[in-house]
Amino acid sequence: MKILIAPDSFKESLEALDVCHAIQAGFSQVFPDAGYKLLPMADGGEGTSAVLSYVLGGRWKEVRVHDPLMRPISAKYVLLPDATAIIEIAQACGLHLLTVAERNPVIASSYGVGELIADALNEGVKRIIIGLGGSATNDAGLGMLTALGMTFYDSDENILAQGGGSLANLQRLEATSFHAGVLETVFEVACDVTNPLYGESGASAIFGPQKGASPQQVNDLDQALHHFAAICEQHGYQDYQKISGAGAAGGLGYALMSFCQAELKSGFDTVAKVTNLSQHIADADLVITGEGKLDAQSAMGKVAGSISQVAKARHTPVIAICGSVDSLEPAQSSQFDVIMPSIQKLESIDNIFKNAYRNIETTAANIAAAIKLGQSIK
Amino acid sequence: MKILIAPDSFKESLEALDVCHAIQAGFSQVFPDAGYKLLPMADGGEGTSAVLSYVLGGRWKEVRVHDPLMRPISAKYVLLPDATAIIEIAQACGLHLLTVAERNPVIASSYGVGELIADALNEGVKRIIIGLGGSATNDAGLGMLTALGMTFYDSDENILAQGGGSLANLQRLEATSFHAGVLETVFEVACDVTNPLYGESGASAIFGPQKGASPQQVNDLDQALHHFAAICEQHGYQDYQKISGAGAAGGLGYALMSFCQAELKSGFDTVAKVTNLSQHIADADLVITGEGKLDAQSAMGKVAGSISQVAKARHTPVIAICGSVDSLEPAQSSQFDVIMPSIQKLESIDNIFKNAYRNIETTAANIAAAIKLGQSIK
Repeated sequence: MKILIAPDSFKESLEALDVCHAIQAGFSQVFPDAGYKLLPMADGGEGTSAVLSYVLGGRWKEVRVHDPLMRPISAKYVLLPDATAIIEIAQACGLHLLTVAERNPVIASSYGVGELIADALNEGVKRIIIGLGGSATNDAGLGMLTALGMTFYDSDENILAQGGGSLANLQRLEATSFHAGVLETVFEVACDVTNPLYGESGASAIFGPQKGASPQQVNDLDQALHHFAAICEQHGYQDYQKISGAGAAGGLGYALMSFCQAELKSGFDTVAKVTNLSQHIADADLVITGEGKLDAQSAMGKVAGSISQVAKARHTPVIAICGSVDSLEPAQSSQFDVIMPSIQKLESIDNIFKNAYRNIETTAANIAAAIKLGQSIK
Repeated sequence: MKILIAPDSFKESLEALDVCHAIQAGFSQVFPDAGYKLLPMADGGEGTSAVLSYVLGGRWKEVRVHDPLMRPISAKYVLLPDATAIIEIAQACGLHLLTVAERNPVIASSYGVGELIADALNEGVKRIIIGLGGSATNDAGLGMLTALGMTFYDSDENILAQGGGSLANLQRLEATSFHAGVLETVFEVACDVTNPLYGESGASAIFGPQKGASPQQVNDLDQALHHFAAICEQHGYQDYQKISGAGAAGGLGYALMSFCQAELKSGFDTVAKVTNLSQHIADADLVITGEGKLDAQSAMGKVAGSISQVAKARHTPVIAICGSVDSLEPAQSSQFDVIMPSIQKLESIDNIFKNAYRNIETTAANIAAAIKLGQSIK
């Protein structure tokens, strides 16, 4: 029996690779001779590059870049053996890098993201996978593009200051110094946000407040993004305003599409493609996935639900081992052959997190035992 | 596939028969054509007669008797079609019948138990199954035996007052009016207490305090029980002082053995025998049991653990579906082919109780699905 173990992390308690090990430990008690392939999964959010680095044998590179307030910091990205870089933008411009008092999307810059990309280009990569999510910025990539050599001028021919607020003053842009590597490189962007760049469901209106923008600033920033898109179009850049994801990460989605010809895909689809998930499922007799919490939302979109769709399309049985299971519709339950929560007893959430590995192992062992029972019973 | 479903109740949340139905509902989703035998189980404690009444097709009979303080109350017992009565002594002399202030084993009487037995004898039963447990009394059956016609005298030839304290005054006993039906009837007593009648691990020392006895009263009651046993022996009744369970229910165990030739067995063994559990297990391809809480204690002695022993002896696979699973030793886990808790998510204990049926059904359905998976996978 060939078993593919491909779970998400159990957020707050266990990394995806540890979940893999716990499931394998449990199944091995019953099926010691089965073939196990461990394929930790991620949804494109935090931890995705760590997972891909493990699966694909990458190495981390640490680079000095600038944070959203242009202070020097260290940021890491992953280099894979096949000349691919994996960059999580939150490393350089994440909201977590700022105190609550420091949050201000009028001045926050994505400059550090451009520095990471430039470093990867200088390493000679031919493909860059970018995880959008968690940004502190609303600058439509003004900072990132500046770090990559693009120059932005106001009507007095002064170079624009950093921050989304400056975009209101943009008069023209100049690409002569733009990093030549950009156009020779494939950009694949993992993005589960579908917002347009500006407007009532745009980046400023939806994500501005959590990044520290006042209602007046939200309005100003939204106008500034609109103006930015108009100037870009005047300069021959395609208008991606209405394309799903243009408003991701404060407009980095727009900038990556317009200036880097990036393709935006869901985080899971990106991970699935890079890890060759379909082929691994095709090679397996049984797929085991899992999530910390399986609910109506995760069954629809996240790792476990997505994996079940791929497996079901191949008629490969799929089991979900979860921390907890909540409010699934029958149609969602039926995506999985077996769904098992791993809580063994009522205890504090801290203890449940602490016991996650053992509980997953125990649950896996008992599911395996039931499968083995089925092999002998008529 | 023939499936025996034989769980205990989930204390505080679901009766054993409801647990049966929930498990069957879940398994039937996957195996609609399997043969299901529902055999709700009990451990000899509260609810045992209800379970046996269901399994064996009994009827309840309500009788006016006397409570531990000799006040009239209604009490129920079960009559089975095979001339068997099932009596839970707590119906007539239970601690729950008294307020805390009323608890006093010096005067509390088991008289009502004798009345229930007499009523059953007058119904013509040939066997009486008695569940010991939960008594308010420490009278070694003085009350019960009195109600059955035995007469107890003090040294002035006065008839003894009710209550364990009176036993200290016992001089002689007279059996001429003892109910003739007693000796023609088989008494089977379900008892999981192993204490002797008196002494440092006797009825008074161990159970007296929770029944309201002060330290001095415990001492007096213990002396009185010792004296009672000595007088009984003088009158030719066998001394069961040291026999395991003599001290059960304030010495009712002793009285039932000495005066009614009762056989004491564990509650589970009694239920197993009466329900013909062994034969049902012999007829099954798969046994599913369950308990509200499966822990080191229940795996050793209670329903689920006991059923697994019977099933294992026949090499019949056995699954435990539980509310929660706690701290099992490996040897205990290995008593079951599959052990699955049914908690789906972390929520309040009230909600877990409220959702017990649905959670058990869901868990059963997923175990069944894993078994079915095993039938198709190599």
